[in-house]
Amino acid sequence: MSEGKHIAIAGATGAVGIEMMKCLEERNFPVASIKLLASARSAGKTMTFNGKTIEVEELTHDSFEGVDIAFFSAGGGTSKEFAPSAAKAGAIVIDNSSAFRMDEDVPLIVPEVNPEAAKNTPKGIIANPNCTTIISLMALAPLHEKYGLKSIIASSYQAVSGSGQAGIEELNQQMDALVNNKEIEINCYPKQIVSNVIPHVDVFQEGGYTKEELKMLNESRKILGLTDLKVTCTCVRVPVMRSHSVSITAAFEKPISVEDARAAFAGKPGIKVVDSPEEELYPVPLDTTCKDDCLVGRIREDKVIDNALALWVVGDQVRKGAALNAVQIGEIL
Amino acid sequence: MSEGKHIAIAGATGAVGIEMMKCLEERNFPVASIKLLASARSAGKTMTFNGKTIEVEELTHDSFEGVDIAFFSAGGGTSKEFAPSAAKAGAIVIDNSSAFRMDEDVPLIVPEVNPEAAKNTPKGIIANPNCTTIISLMALAPLHEKYGLKSIIASSYQAVSGSGQAGIEELNQQMDALVNNKEIEINCYPKQIVSNVIPHVDVFQEGGYTKEELKMLNESRKILGLTDLKVTCTCVRVPVMRSHSVSITAAFEKPISVEDARAAFAGKPGIKVVDSPEEELYPVPLDTTCKDDCLVGRIREDKVIDNALALWVVGDQVRKGAALNAVQIGEIL
Repeated sequence: MSEGKHIAIAGATGAVGIEMMKCLEERNFPVASIKLLASARSAGKTMTFNGKTIEVEELTHDSFEGVDIAFFSAGGGTSKEFAPSAAKAGAIVIDNSSAFRMDEDVPLIVPEVNPEAAKNTPKGIIANPNCTTIISLMALAPLHEKYGLKSIIASSYQAVSGSGQAGIEELNQQMDALVNNKEIEINCYPKQIVSNVIPHVDVFQEGGYTKEELKMLNESRKILGLTDLKVTCTCVRVPVMRSHSVSITAAFEKPISVEDARAAFAGKPGIKVVDSPEEELYPVPLDTTCKDDCLVGRIREDKVIDNALALWVVGDQVRKGAALNAVQIGEIL
Repeated sequence: MSEGKHIAIAGATGAVGIEMMKCLEERNFPVASIKLLASARSAGKTMTFNGKTIEVEELTHDSFEGVDIAFFSAGGGTSKEFAPSAAKAGAIVIDNSSAFRMDEDVPLIVPEVNPEAAKNTPKGIIANPNCTTIISLMALAPLHEKYGLKSIIASSYQAVSGSGQAGIEELNQQMDALVNNKEIEINCYPKQIVSNVIPHVDVFQEGGYTKEELKMLNESRKILGLTDLKVTCTCVRVPVMRSHSVSITAAFEKPISVEDARAAFAGKPGIKVVDSPEEELYPVPLDTTCKDDCLVGRIREDKVIDNALALWVVGDQVRKGAALNAVQIGEIL
């Protein structure tokens, strides 16, 4: 990428859009020009990128002329409407929404896991996986590589950043109301989130599972190329700002020990083992906040399933769960 | 219990001790007299029971003369030291600590699950199980009765009340500090608990499991009389005031459907099904706070294990997880 790329960010004013700009800056992504796109409501605002002030423009079907890479992070509806226009104009779209993830002609990429799949983009669109799925697979892929993943039973502890700025504001406002004895207003979530946990992320689907829980099943299968992978997932929103945690029992084809797992993680990019209980060292959301690496710990032999491990993986939802992963996809193009 | 019982509460000034007094009052427990016992530090304080002001006395080996039932909730060390004296003085001890739970001569009781075991008390001591175990078994026992429980894979979302007043104060203080931009002090937990989750409850033991996680294994086996029950548990502290939630995959000997489970719960005391996702009805900690019943929902067929269900159970940690269960044991004596 000698001369740099012409970049657009659709949804630039959202939590993930802002983080994408940070990631592009920090990683010295070769940017020749950058267009910041958002809804008409946000158009005219100014933002700073690499020291330059840039005015936010309204996202339209004509926004993408001359653009090489268009990052989308403005929700599934916006992606469905505008991503094809961006692709038609010649841009490669990297889409953070769920709109195209299960489309057979759209690769679904975690750069550390299946970068080779990014080469084949018949629609000019690459999808960024669900945040909980990315973070879980950062821990499971190195184990799968050597021991063959068979099944996942996962319970998540998902931060409010997964709902964008609205989730972050809701937790901040409710915390303020609780501390200052004001009435707690509920806008973003179906229940109060401060001093509560909510086993409901995304909409409910058949069999009582939520769409978020089925993403772990369907997206993991697609990313790992494992059509028979079995996944039970329970997704839970917790009053944490911006890192997701996942408690996982993962079963493998071959016998695997705790030591085997530690050896499999050694040297793998993007995942660090933090697992010294005797020193009170294990991953917690605050330790991954605004960091690139996912952390894995609490690695134990599972007591129920053969050839299985219990483990605990944590990652920054806004960063590796969304913006960083998208920018890394841009880097491998 | 025609004339009422002479009661003592060791640890009366703690979160569970206070709740025990509330439960005794609310349930019109036949109390002939009540002694409130605590450390020398708390002696002389006054508390109210059934409208009467009662002075807290220092707990000594001579505190139990004439006492019929001695509730202990002052930590394992205090129970180990003073419970034998209470039993020797003729009281039946109902102990909320983990000190005697695995003692073969001490029954471990959830009144809705194994009340018959409370009859045999060779040491004059009955143990109250771990809070997460009680709440989980309230949901699993009715299913076990008909379908034969084989294994449990559980991840918990445990409230700070599990650490007593110290945990509640820590979360309140840290929330205040975060809202008012003050420095966050860490005293009770190994890490900040506000806007964080901590996969570390009680001390670490062999194999990387914590004592709390192994309680789910060992106590569930003892209460259900299932020596071969397999249990993998990951216990996590979350910034919630006083209700625990548990995400469970439970496997059974016989095939079991979601409808089978609903039928098995019908009419069972202490457990209510709240499971209408289409109406956004599922259990959350705030809905069980200060309530007696545990709530179960998110009942789904597990996608990994045969004859297994995924479910989500929530209960008030201070109440059913501790004080209420102890008072209920007192009622069946």
